[in-house]
Parts: sequence; C-alpha cells; structure tokens
Amino acid sequence: MTQPRRRSEATYTGLRCRECGHPYEATAHHVCSEVCFGPLEVVYDMERIKARVSRAAIEAGPLSIWRYRDFLPVDHDPIDVGTGLTPLLRANRLARRLGLKRLYIKNDGVNMPTLSFKDRVVSVALTRARELGFTTVSCASTGNLANSTAAIASHAGMRCCVFIPADLEAGKVLGTLVYNPTLMAVEGNYDQVNRLCCEVANSHGWGFVNINLRPYYSEGSKTLAFEVAEQLGWRLPDHVVAPLASGSLYTKICKGFREFVEAGLVEEKPIRFSGAQAEGCSPIAQAFDAGRDFIAPVKPDTIAKSIAIGNPADGLYALDVARQSGGSITAVSDAEIVSAIKLLAETEGIFTETAGGTTIAVLKKLAESGKIHPDETTVAYITGNGLKTAEAVNDVVGAPFRIDARLDSFNQAWAKASGQTTAGTSPAT
Amino acid sequence: MTQPRRRSEATYTGLRCRECGHPYEATAHHVCSEVCFGPLEVVYDMERIKARVSRAAIEAGPLSIWRYRDFLPVDHDPIDVGTGLTPLLRANRLARRLGLKRLYIKNDGVNMPTLSFKDRVVSVALTRARELGFTTVSCASTGNLANSTAAIASHAGMRCCVFIPADLEAGKVLGTLVYNPTLMAVEGNYDQVNRLCCEVANSHGWGFVNINLRPYYSEGSKTLAFEVAEQLGWRLPDHVVAPLASGSLYTKICKGFREFVEAGLVEEKPIRFSGAQAEGCSPIAQAFDAGRDFIAPVKPDTIAKSIAIGNPADGLYALDVARQSGGSITAVSDAEIVSAIKLLAETEGIFTETAGGTTIAVLKKLAESGKIHPDETTVAYITGNGLKTAEAVNDVVGAPFRIDARLDSFNQAWAKASGQTTAGTSPAT
Repeated sequence: MTQPRRRSEATYTGLRCRECGHPYEATAHHVCSEVCFGPLEVVYDMERIKARVSRAAIEAGPLSIWRYRDFLPVDHDPIDVGTGLTPLLRANRLARRLGLKRLYIKNDGVNMPTLSFKDRVVSVALTRARELGFTTVSCASTGNLANSTAAIASHAGMRCCVFIPADLEAGKVLGTLVYNPTLMAVEGNYDQVNRLCCEVANSHGWGFVNINLRPYYSEGSKTLAFEVAEQLGWRLPDHVVAPLASGSLYTKICKGFREFVEAGLVEEKPIRFSGAQAEGCSPIAQAFDAGRDFIAPVKPDTIAKSIAIGNPADGLYALDVARQSGGSITAVSDAEIVSAIKLLAETEGIFTETAGGTTIAVLKKLAESGKIHPDETTVAYITGNGLKTAEAVNDVVGAPFRIDARLDSFNQAWAKASGQTTAGTSPAT
Repeated sequence: MTQPRRRSEATYTGLRCRECGHPYEATAHHVCSEVCFGPLEVVYDMERIKARVSRAAIEAGPLSIWRYRDFLPVDHDPIDVGTGLTPLLRANRLARRLGLKRLYIKNDGVNMPTLSFKDRVVSVALTRARELGFTTVSCASTGNLANSTAAIASHAGMRCCVFIPADLEAGKVLGTLVYNPTLMAVEGNYDQVNRLCCEVANSHGWGFVNINLRPYYSEGSKTLAFEVAEQLGWRLPDHVVAPLASGSLYTKICKGFREFVEAGLVEEKPIRFSGAQAEGCSPIAQAFDAGRDFIAPVKPDTIAKSIAIGNPADGLYALDVARQSGGSITAVSDAEIVSAIKLLAETEGIFTETAGGTTIAVLKKLAESGKIHPDETTVAYITGNGLKTAEAVNDVVGAPFRIDARLDSFNQAWAKASGQTTAGTSPAT
C-alpha cells in the first residue's frame, strides 16, 4: 500500500455557495445555511491542477475514473473498484438511420460494478464519506443509485441503508438487495423519498451520498466528459445528448469539458448540450419550452423511473446550460422511449434501460428535425443497462420460435422467419 | 478509415489438427476431416509476433481486447465494440473471509456489450466470419453466447440466427431478443442444441461461431489471460480459478499466459489452474476425481445453466491443464453456488450469475481446504453478470422494509433492522 496522500496535495480548497459565493469548509454540507440556502459546490485551485496534469500522466493512470483524480474532491487513496473508462462506441449504423455522420455512444450500461453512471458519483461520494469519518452511508434513489451505493459500500466495508420508492422495477430491487444493505421501500414517489431522507440525514448523522455529500458526489459526473474528450483523441465533441433527472449529470458534463479546457488538456470550442426527459416527468423541458426561469414541479408518471424526478434540484442550472450552449431540452413519450431502446439494440448491439431509451429517442427527434447537424461530432450518453428495466421491453421484443431438436423442425421455422417482412422474431409457433 | 491490413501482416499462418498436426487452410473448418477428426487450432508465427509486440505498444493500443491483436487470428480491421479490458479488482474483504492475502477478481460481468466473457470470443469470431464472407452468423448457446452473438452481429450489420435450449433464464432470452435476431428455442438440453446446430452448419452454410468458426472463436478467451498479466503489472498470477463448461475458456487462459511468456512480455513462472463445475453437470470434475483419461457425458441438472454442458468438447485438454499445473477440478452444489453469489456481492460489491457463483464457491472450498496457499496471488474469473440469472437468488435475498414516507415509520423499521443479528434485510413488514 502507498502512503495516504496528505490533504495539502489535494487540488480542492473547500466549498462555496453556488448562488452567493459564501465559503464553507469541506465538510458534509450541501446548503448555504449561513446566507441564502443555495447549493454548495466544490472550489478547486486550477493553477495547482494545471501544474500537475498532462495528457501523458492521465493516460498512464489507472483504468478507471481515478486517472482524473486531480479534478476530483478527495484527499487520500480513493475507493477504486474499476469504475469508469467505459467504451465510447462509434455508432455508424445508428448514425445512418438518423442521417448523421459522426455519432458516438458513451456506454455506462457496462459500468463497473453496477452498470450505470451512478458508480462514478458513488465512488467519489463514498471515498469522501470515509475521509469524513462516516461509517453508515445512505441515499435516496430511483434505483441505480441504490444499486451502486449498496455495492460500493460492500466493497469498502461500510454499513449501508438505502431508500427507494416502493414501486421500482424488480431488477433494481434485486440488484440492491443482493449486496445486503438495509433497504427501505417507501410508499411514495422519489420526491417524497428524498424529503424523508433529508429528515433522516439531519436526525441520524449518516452520510447521504446525494444529500449532505452532494457537492462531492455530483463532481463524479464530470468524468463522463473527461473520458469522452480523451477517447475522442483529446478533442471535444460538437453536440452532446444526455438525460435529465435532477439535472446534475447534464450540468456536470458541461463543467467537465470546461475544466479540461481550463487545464489546457483540450482546445476550446463551442459544444451544444441537448437534454432528454420523459413526457411523464418533464419539468425542465416544460420550462425550456415555455421560456420560463423557474421549474414547476410535476408528479411523475412514466416508465423511465430512473429519471423520474418531479422537483429537480439542478433544473435551473440545466436550463442555463441548454440556453447558453444553443442546445435544447426535449421530452419524448413512453412509446418513443421503448422504440428507441429497440432501435439502439438492433443497430448497435447496446441494450439500455429506459433512461437510455429517452436519450436515444430525443437524439432521433433532434436529428430528424435538423437540430443536430449531420456533420456534428455527436455523443449520446447511455447511463444504464437494459437488464435493469426488462419490464419496459418484455412485451415488445416478440418470442423465440420453439422447435424440436431436429433439422426439419428448424427448417420449417426458418422458412417462416425468412418469409416475414423483418428478419426478426415472431410469436411462438 | 484506415486501409484494410493485408493478410501478409497477419501473425497466424493457418490451422492444424491439435491431435495429429495435419495442416489446414484458414477457412471455416473445425475438425481434422482428412485424417483423425481431432479439433483444429490456429497456428501462429511466434517469431513474427515477438518482432512486433512490446509492453509499450500494447499499452498504447485500443481500450479493448484488440490491443492484443497480434495474438489473435484476424487479417483486417476488427469489429471493435469496446469488448474487454474489464476491471481486475483487488478483493481484500473476500480474501480475509477466505484466509487469503492476495486475491483478485477479474470481472467480465461488466464486459461490453453483453456482460459476459462471450463478448471476447464473439468479437473475434464475427471479425473472422466477415473476413471469410459469411453474411449470416449463428451459434448454439446456453444464453450468454446468444446475447453476445446477437448484439455484435447487430453492430456489424450481419444477419443472425441463434439457438438456445428452451428452458433458459428469462433474462437471457430477453437479452437476446432485444437485438432482433431470429431466435430458436430448442426443446432439449445444450448438447442436443449443439448437435442440431452441427447439422444446420452443414446444410445452410452459415458461420457458427462455436462450430465451424470455433478455432478462431476460442482464441478470444486468451485475452482473459493477457489482461490479467498486464493489469498485474506485467506479471503472472500464481493460481487461477475459472469455470468449466466446454473447457475451452480454461485451457485458453493457460494458453494466453504461455504465449505472453513466449513473446517475452512476462517472466515465466508456474501457475496452478483450478477449474469449477456445478455438481449437476460435472463430467470433467468427475473424470479428474476418478483419475480417468476420458470424459463420461452427463445429463445436466443445475441452476448454473450457462456452464451446463454435459459433453464438453475440450474436457480432455482441461484435464491435462489441471493435472500438469498441479491444479484441480472441483464441483459444488447449487446451494453452494447461491451462497457464493451472495458472498461475493456482500464482500466485494460484485453481482455475478450462477457461473461466477460456481467459481467463487470452488475458490472458497480450495481456500478452506488449504489447496490455495494464502500467499499465492490468486485470480478468480467472473464470467457473467448476476442480472442475467436473477431467478437464482430472488428467493434468498430477502425483501425491503416497506415504510411510509415519514420519519417515525422509518425509525420503527430501522430499530427492527438494527435489532437483527445481521445488518441486512428482513421479510417485508
């Protein structure tokens, strides 16, 4: 084991309020309690970062998000379970379908350990939780975060209690329980779960990754930008499409690209940021469409449960990013989401959950309406794996041909399959 | 696009019979049809490989199995969907439970695109299939191979028809159908499916990844050795534990380490190879125990369906590897498999399918019986993701506490959870 890195080597200096700038110590604290109740964010010493980082040093680093450690708010050796460095796939067949020329899919559906981008933010949050002395960690989750918090807490040997809405998909419940946390299924939607968790955070003194540890946690999403820039050969994309739940992921991707520019790792250029929501929970898209400067909370009703946050904490910041970058925030129906899951699977061999379906459905809409230019280097972020929300496509993928283990039985079925208009599956014979 | 690499740059020269050495052209052919009906294998020009490879060149290569391209039997630009370079996790908490000191988990449960090691072999097989002019590809599968063949064929735009036993897990059926291949669910076990596929291969002229393309396909498993050696800092482990189905993966891991030694990339040292089977389908373990030189086929009856091959094609070669390396081949019960899935999840945050549970159960048995020395650097291969075989653990992970969105409701449940002997879940309240 190497010696723990001393705090003085860290590149961040503390927290500050995002609204009024009031400074805070780097403790477990997320709200500007002394002045304006704005959200807190991490402050970095960019000169120190610039003095330390280089393309070569990053390339020689670990095969995980921790190769970007100098951009992350931790003091000591991180909890590195191999999270990150997920594939960036050149998606030529999907691009042709959509009339695009340079399309890439960033696939966090194969992220380590729990197959969603949440493994990034949780790796950072639990590292910081350990540094701050927490022994019990927790979260309010729509599913993916519960999976990730429970899994990484297991690896780190931390006690874990997680909260989910009671109506989650079976795959997400099982994919949490297997790690043996204490799991609380709350009668209510995510926003109600979140409110309860704020009370628990206050009364029990636990480290909630997305509440009192939120300033650290949310920084983990920047690695989705860092990796894309590195994987594009140290270049920025022209256009990004990402899903919006709280709005944090979307804004942090923007921040990540900006920090890489500031650190001199990539050349600056304009990037347009397009956001994706499900119509059944689209408070940010509605505000964007209406040209409003406030978010009107909604009650979620969509199959895209992992992004069903009716009262999004970072909604206003997301609106800013969309407007200032010349992007947009678009909502799609549940039927479009399911079609898009199938489209991505059939053209590129990537099976994503409903949040990814939302992203691809919006990508399709933007491409078809000319809002993405064919020549733009476009990156669509797939944030979770399709096996977690199997219910969403179970009824629409058809069924296998059932045959006997004889050549004539196969030949009959194959003739039937070949006679169909698609090469695809059919109802069971 | 770069120019296709010319054949003359390939490092392999053809095929030969593994038994009698008779040479064959590098076509779609897997059996020594001219002499002895032995299996065919790829022949390399090791001098050419040695002249070309270096640690630095590999490290600068793609973030996928194709960084080891010089060790793989392809001519032109490969189908690179980002497969491989999966995390090698230092598993200290599991190690402590088992009384070991240097334990690593190689986790192909997060492999791209379909969460199993099969993505490696299929990437190689479909690349070669395309080079050989096949437009329809196929396989006989216990599930993971069907997922992978369907997915990568989608990305490559190849027509795909896959065969599975009709009783597979729902996750594996859905995880194939979503890519829209033609899926044949055969009434019978894997060995019957395989026999049918041999007939189809002969009569339809398709590229079957694990039949007529098998010599190429199986080479993909060597990358599981290459990656571990690189990730250990260009060193070999002392002990390897891997699951056995046909026996191909296990023998190819051994071959991969040997080739790295021959190429001068790592220093030679003895490695012990231990194999894992489920008691309900353990023909190779039975032969090992009995000291037999032949495999008596069995009829599979185990929850570990992905490794339930009753008549394993490479069983004898696997026996040789176990015996010559001082390893063993061990069988475990379905109950031990389920416990091991939970053990790995609870200690390391990795959720594996039944095949991985088999591997960890055997690892546990070997550690407890002293057959793995505590100081050995041991690598256990996790070959697939737990979400694919959710059924296996559904009944044993407990259920969430169901609570109202109020602090008192939570506090009651938490008191109950804390009063339990484990910190874990309980039946629904």
